[in-house]
Amino acid sequence: MSAIPPGNVVTWDRTDPRAARCVIRSGGYTGYTAAIAAGYVQANICILPRDWSADFLLYCQRNSKPCPLIARSDVGDPRLPTLAEDLDIRTDIPRYHIFCDGEFTEEVSDISSHWRDDLVTFALGCSFSFEEAMLEAGLRLKFLERNSVAGVYVTNIDTVPAGPFRGPLLVTMRAFKPADAIRAIQITSRFPNVHGAPVHIGDPASIGVDLSRRYQNVGDGEVAAGEIPVFWACGLTPQLAVKSAKPPFCITHAPSSMLITDLRNASLAVL
Amino acid sequence: MSAIPPGNVVTWDRTDPRAARCVIRSGGYTGYTAAIAAGYVQANICILPRDWSADFLLYCQRNSKPCPLIARSDVGDPRLPTLAEDLDIRTDIPRYHIFCDGEFTEEVSDISSHWRDDLVTFALGCSFSFEEAMLEAGLRLKFLERNSVAGVYVTNIDTVPAGPFRGPLLVTMRAFKPADAIRAIQITSRFPNVHGAPVHIGDPASIGVDLSRRYQNVGDGEVAAGEIPVFWACGLTPQLAVKSAKPPFCITHAPSSMLITDLRNASLAVL
Repeated sequence: MSAIPPGNVVTWDRTDPRAARCVIRSGGYTGYTAAIAAGYVQANICILPRDWSADFLLYCQRNSKPCPLIARSDVGDPRLPTLAEDLDIRTDIPRYHIFCDGEFTEEVSDISSHWRDDLVTFALGCSFSFEEAMLEAGLRLKFLERNSVAGVYVTNIDTVPAGPFRGPLLVTMRAFKPADAIRAIQITSRFPNVHGAPVHIGDPASIGVDLSRRYQNVGDGEVAAGEIPVFWACGLTPQLAVKSAKPPFCITHAPSSMLITDLRNASLAVL
Repeated sequence: MSAIPPGNVVTWDRTDPRAARCVIRSGGYTGYTAAIAAGYVQANICILPRDWSADFLLYCQRNSKPCPLIARSDVGDPRLPTLAEDLDIRTDIPRYHIFCDGEFTEEVSDISSHWRDDLVTFALGCSFSFEEAMLEAGLRLKFLERNSVAGVYVTNIDTVPAGPFRGPLLVTMRAFKPADAIRAIQITSRFPNVHGAPVHIGDPASIGVDLSRRYQNVGDGEVAAGEIPVFWACGLTPQLAVKSAKPPFCITHAPSSMLITDLRNASLAVL
């Protein structure tokens, strides 16, 4: 598929992950991915030089709730065939963020010109997968109705360091009536590869969280009367660890512009 | 086995459910059953005349969380072969309570002389089974260390009536640190035949419970700092429904003197 001239309206099947990647690859879509290819796994992406990749792999292993690794590429190989046969990580994300020495330098929609033979791609699961399972079970996620995402918070819980990678655990908060909170724990327990069961329920202060102070103002922190806040490990945790490690070069997806894979969310459920 | 003269010391294997029933059958043990035959299912028992049994069966079906039916006898048959081959409900419980028109009349250690051809036995699961699974998972149940049981409370939630059987839902409360509360929900979700997952977590008042006011002062209601109360449906719920229905005749086990079966607790786990 050739590049699509800017301004042209492209018609494509938004339920098909391969069609979505194809349009994204050709520059035809640079937006958020939340409403695209419903039912398919979307992944957080972190691309690091080989010299930093062993420690980052260890960091993910030691902190599997915030860093649920679903794929790691071979060194220099832009493919992730276990996520999708045709996938090319250099072109298949709508927008990328590039970091040098831990500092953000630019946002691009294609990293082909930045690619190097020593780069390693890490794909981490994302809570979109279990949110779909919650909705299918009849739970209400009010932040979705407000076109928002779950509120994100920095906790006073440290992750387990690995080499230069270290930092606090970040969490997402979703508020439920108590019976629904119990159901949400059951449902997310089925998804260990996308953060799994909650890490905390109830009193925010006991994990160092003030619900009015969201990380980078991300998401929705409302807890209505009669609801109980429930906290899951968050995929932004490794981004903070990378920022702290200050690798000379790093590429991530731009927030909410995720990698769309061919894996079905339901395929991640262990039960 | 013949009756054992009172005062004689009987030596038997307390880990073996059949040996326990044999001693109980001969009058050699009339105490609590909590520490006997660890690992095996113990059951709540309710024996009703046939004319009342259809409505009670329906009540159990409509309220399966507080009334998890694990066996129902044939009419007039004192056996429950699915729970143990040798089991005779007239002799195999240490102590029984007899009720007439809903009122307690006497405690006995053998109901052979009360048995009638129209009686039907119901055996309901008990939370001892999932408490064992919690302990094996490393959770702490502080009330057990104090030789007590979980605190019991009457809620403002009504059960679904069936014929004359109706009444409030009773719950047991166990307090945990939040991460352990999440684990407790996961573990008990595996045991739908013994009350299953909790019905409530957090604020007691929202289900009409005052933690300082236990039902008949049963159990331990402590919630330590940093703990969250978790509430499970309780097997005393049907006893209150029977009391409200006032059948002319009814026999139950005496509190904490349960029926010991040959089923392993682990066999009730669905996952």
